[in-house]
Formats: sequence, C-alpha cells, structure tokens
Amino acid sequence: MQKILLAPDSFKGTMTAAEICMIMAEEIRRVFPACEIVEIPVADGGEGTVESFLRAVPGQAISARISGPFGEPVDGYYALLDSGKTAVVEMAAAAGLPMVEDRKDPAKATTYGVGQLIAAAVQRGARQVIVGMGGSCTNDGGCGMAAALGVKFMDAHGREFIPTGGTLESIVAIDTSGAEDMLRGVTLRAMCDVDNPLCGPEGAAFVFAPQKGADAQMVQLLDQGLCHYGRLLEMLPGNASIASMPGAGAAGGLGAGMRGLLGAELVPGIEAVLDVAGFDALIDGCDLIFTGEGRIDGQSLSGKVVLGVARRAARKGTPVCAIVGDAQDEGLEAAYEQGLTSVISINRLAIPFAQAKPRAKDDLRATVRNLLRLLATQTR
Amino acid sequence: MQKILLAPDSFKGTMTAAEICMIMAEEIRRVFPACEIVEIPVADGGEGTVESFLRAVPGQAISARISGPFGEPVDGYYALLDSGKTAVVEMAAAAGLPMVEDRKDPAKATTYGVGQLIAAAVQRGARQVIVGMGGSCTNDGGCGMAAALGVKFMDAHGREFIPTGGTLESIVAIDTSGAEDMLRGVTLRAMCDVDNPLCGPEGAAFVFAPQKGADAQMVQLLDQGLCHYGRLLEMLPGNASIASMPGAGAAGGLGAGMRGLLGAELVPGIEAVLDVAGFDALIDGCDLIFTGEGRIDGQSLSGKVVLGVARRAARKGTPVCAIVGDAQDEGLEAAYEQGLTSVISINRLAIPFAQAKPRAKDDLRATVRNLLRLLATQTR
Repeated sequence: MQKILLAPDSFKGTMTAAEICMIMAEEIRRVFPACEIVEIPVADGGEGTVESFLRAVPGQAISARISGPFGEPVDGYYALLDSGKTAVVEMAAAAGLPMVEDRKDPAKATTYGVGQLIAAAVQRGARQVIVGMGGSCTNDGGCGMAAALGVKFMDAHGREFIPTGGTLESIVAIDTSGAEDMLRGVTLRAMCDVDNPLCGPEGAAFVFAPQKGADAQMVQLLDQGLCHYGRLLEMLPGNASIASMPGAGAAGGLGAGMRGLLGAELVPGIEAVLDVAGFDALIDGCDLIFTGEGRIDGQSLSGKVVLGVARRAARKGTPVCAIVGDAQDEGLEAAYEQGLTSVISINRLAIPFAQAKPRAKDDLRATVRNLLRLLATQTR
Repeated sequence: MQKILLAPDSFKGTMTAAEICMIMAEEIRRVFPACEIVEIPVADGGEGTVESFLRAVPGQAISARISGPFGEPVDGYYALLDSGKTAVVEMAAAAGLPMVEDRKDPAKATTYGVGQLIAAAVQRGARQVIVGMGGSCTNDGGCGMAAALGVKFMDAHGREFIPTGGTLESIVAIDTSGAEDMLRGVTLRAMCDVDNPLCGPEGAAFVFAPQKGADAQMVQLLDQGLCHYGRLLEMLPGNASIASMPGAGAAGGLGAGMRGLLGAELVPGIEAVLDVAGFDALIDGCDLIFTGEGRIDGQSLSGKVVLGVARRAARKGTPVCAIVGDAQDEGLEAAYEQGLTSVISINRLAIPFAQAKPRAKDDLRATVRNLLRLLATQTR
C-alpha cells in the first residue's frame, strides 16, 4: 500500500470529517507505516467549511469585520487558497443560526455580512469564491449579500433599501449592474446539497424557516415574500424558472440570490471540495480511497459525498471504500456501478444509535484497523 | 485469491455454521469465480454435530435403533468418516433435551442410547469415536452410556443396575473391565466447551439441571448423587481429581463418565473438528481463512472457534478473518497475537439485537460481499 487518500464527510452530530481523517490516518500509519496519506476532510457548506478547506488545501484564514445577522459588527473570516486565487466563504460565519440562538428572527435577519466577506475576498484578489451555504438564520433570498456586492433594490417609492425576509414584498425593482462591475472576472460557486425550490410547500420558508424561529403566520408571510421575489428574479435576463430551480431555496433563498443576482453556479458541495483540492490529480498513484458518511441508503442513494468521490475515482479506476455509520444495502448496486467498491459499517455491536453514538470514534478506529490488518495480508 | 477456507461456528439461534458457509461461498464465487473454496462448518457438539461433520468431511450417516432417554426405542444416528475409521456421535440424538420436551426428568433420564451409538460405531469398525456432548436431558454422569459399553454398577446388595441421576447414590462399586474389552484399540474423544466440575455450586446439577426440569429440591438430590459418584470415580486408577476436572460437569456429568470410566480425552469442540477435517493440511496454499462466531469479546476471550482456528492457522502464517455478530474490541490484542488477523462485524445498522437478528443473513451476505469487493482490488 503506497498511497491512500482520505475524503470522508462528517458523521453529522457524531464526528467531524477532520476527526475521521485523523483516526483513519493514525490507523493507516500503524499498519502501513510507509504509506503516503492524503487527507481531504470534506466540508459540507455549513459551519466549519472554511476550516475544512484549510485542512485539505494550503492556504490562510483571513478575518474581516463585517455586519452580523442584525447589522451588529462581528468578526467574520474566510479562507484564501491556491496562492490567493480561490477564496472560501461560509455563510455560517456571517449569518449563522448559532449566532442568534436567543433572538431568532428570519423576518429581520440579513445575509449582508456574507456579501461583505465575498467582497473582501475579491478585493484581496480572489478570482474564484466558493460560498458554503449552510446553517443560516436568514430568509432574505440573498438580498443582503447582493446589496453588499452592489445590487440595488428599490421600493414602490423609488427608494433604495436592503430587503430582509419580512420586506421582500416591498421590492419593485432590482438593478444588478453594480455587482456586475464588482464581480467582473470572478467566478462564484455556491455549495448546495438541497433540492428545495425558492417558495411554495417545498420552499425555503415552509421547510426551513420554522427551525429559524418562524411561527406558522410568519412562515406564510416569508413564503409570500419569496414568491414575489422569485417573480422579480425571473424577469431579469437569463433567470427563467429560477424560483423552481433545485437549490433556489437553500439557505433562506440564498441559492436563488446567488444564481439569479450574481450568476453563481450552484454545485454539490463535494464537487467544490474535490475541485479545489485537486482530487483528480491527487489520486494518481493511489491504491485506495477511503470516503464515508454517517449513513448510506441504496434506496435514496443518499451519500452525496460517497457517490461524488466514487464517480471521480472511477475515471481512473481507483478503488473506493466507504466507511459509514449505517448502511442500508438494498439498492446499492447503483452506487457500485458508479465506482463505489465497498461499504463497510462501523457498527460493531447490535445496539441502538443512542448507545452507539458515544462509541463512534472507537468503533471507527476498530473498523479501520481490522480492515487494514486484513488488507495488509493481501496487498501487492 | 486462489483458495479460501471457511471454518465458522454457528451464530447461536441466528444462523447455523452450514448456512454461514453457504452464504460466504456464494459471495466468494461471485467475486472470485475461480477461487477454490473449502468449507468446514464447525460443529458445536450439540444437535446437528453429526450433520456438520458430514458437511465438512466425506462420510455417511448411519441409523441405529437405540434406547431413548427413558428407555423407549428411538432411531438414532451417527456418522462414519475417513473410510469408516472415525465415527461421530452426538448425544443429542440419544438423550437430547428436545426429545423430552413435555416430560423432562433428569433424575430418571439415561445416556444409555449414547453408549449404544458408540458401540454400534465400534462394531462397524470405527477406531476413533468423537462424541458431541451438548443439549442433554440427563444427569446420570454418563453411567447409562458406560453401561451400554460394558461397565457394571453394583448397589449395596451386590446387584447390577444402571444408575440414573436419581440413583447415583446407590452405587457402591464400579467394574470397568467390560468396557475395556469392548473399546480396546478405540480412541474416544469428547467435544467439550464448558469448564464446569462434576458437582458443587458450579457443577452439572446446580448449573444445568434446572433447564432440564429439576426443581430446587431435585437439584440438591442430583448434586448429592454426582458428588457420591465423583468420589467413587476418583477411587478408580488414574482418576485423581476427576470430579473437579474442567468439563467433568458437561452434559449432566457425561464428561466425568467419558473420562473416568472410558478413558476418553476431553477436547475443545473446535480441535476435534479441525483434526477430523484435516485442517492443517487443508490450509496449504490458502490465501485466507474466514472463521466466525456470534460474538467475540476481548475481555473474556470468548470465541473458542475463532481462537482455535487462528492458533492453528498461525503455524502456517495463513491470515484469519473472523466475521462476527458482536465484536467487543477491548482486549482483542491477545487474540491478534495468537494469529487472528481481523474481526469484522456483520452489524450494518445501529439497531438492537431483536431488530438485527431477522436481518442477520442479509447482513452477513452484505458484509462478506463488501469485504471481498475491497479485497479484490488489492489482491495479488
């Protein structure tokens, strides 16, 4: 075993991707001391995305004084990678739900700080900005972010304002020309792993606003605002059907704003991570890739990280072993066909999740150790 | 992968060893179609032992009309292996607990039929008889069996009788000369995986008689009988400390009778199986051995089959992978040091055993499949 690449997702609520990488790497060094190990802990777009990228790719964390969810000054941060040409922003650093734990109000919260972080990165010279959309406390359709990047929103009186979730219905006109200037030559990529449309029963308000503090009445109001906003977005050139685009409803409608106001590309998080990490080159000479997720289910083909890794590895024929919490095997043939070699569960006892969870790190370690010990007897 | 040997124990109450072998073999053929597969489903000494041996080794099943637990005629069976030189008898065929489900009475039940099976095998020419001691309904210290093989028991009136659990205290003299004649040149090996002494708090009566139908008062009586019998056994030449010998209390004291009256060797079941199967020769050219048990626990180093297989495989350096239900990893280092390569659990979901049990075959299949798919990418 000459080279092993690690690209696991986190096991949500149990282990971070970085922790999983660390345990796997320790066990690999124990069994194959001379093996080269490449670690790409996979960011999920939420809190910790910037840190994950910095673990996977050389770069630096930059702080920036920005506006928080209610306009208060906060210390945000982003990453500059690839000699400064690529930046990574996580919305959780500017409009994250944990920032407003006691004062949730998705009608008033803004993504303005997200736009400030993007602007700061661009001013530093970034030509590509990856935006992790996850863990937001907002429902403003990304209007705050867009405003910070030069987009102008006008009300019925012709006055410019910065819409929030509760005032989206007041928008009568949108002018994106300021942002076009500011972002010229810059590629924006939004990490998006949900399929929700902007509004309606599967939209941002109905599905995600309750956990951000909205009661039933506010959900109705927020949804009306998003629907109105969606119709306006669709009147802009190139935005046909944008309100129903999968991912438009991500992060309180930030997905719609990223795409419809700033021309961003919405990509699965794993694709953004693997691109930035240079995965396709890194797997040259790789004997084995370990990926993983908290759960893989053949029925839903959940496991976006596992499948994303497998599809790319398949192009070079590199074996991919997914280490997972729970494995629902029925239907996994489709995943095998896409390049997945095997799925190994870390469960080592027949016990319910509440009992298994505190053992997860030990179980992961034991699983990887035993797997590697077996492989060591068979490898070239 | 040229050759794989399968030597799993049953997962008690979930899958037989033969079922496990079948599933493993099917998955091996799917991934390594040209691989030679040797199957040794491991007998545990209880019901099914004869059948297990016949699956592992060429031979034939022989029926014999014998006496059942209460003297009634029953159709018993044994196996002749190795061109008839080796026979396998399971006591469950002559004195098994399922035979007396509605009329359990360990004070009266006899192992006479077990002796008849041994005698039948010897008359057929067997020079080695393996006796599976497991699943008995008796507590007669093996006196019935010994009587069928020529041992004489006398009471205080000098009358010959065949003691049962309730009449052991009536024995005043034992004459083994008849059995010596009948078993001359015959090696008896009793498969024994319990450590219980003949009598006392850890003895056959206190530990096993309740499940055979004894109430507290009968347990006391049976234990007194066994203690008395033990003292008589220890007066015979070569039987010092036989009552406290580990395994003397196996199968209602059959262990003591096998050793003390017939000179049998008590051996761990797995050793008997591996010897008869010719394991040491079979692993020549073997790339991998799959063994397994329902549970392995590093603390108790349970898993006698796994360890038995691992110790022998270690002599030739053949890798041993244990596929288990539950894996308690703490303390397993000792097992690795004895030759075990790795322990893989079939649990693929964090669910309690009651839910996992009906899925066990599917989980075993998925586990082996995924393991083999991974190995196939790495094997020489």
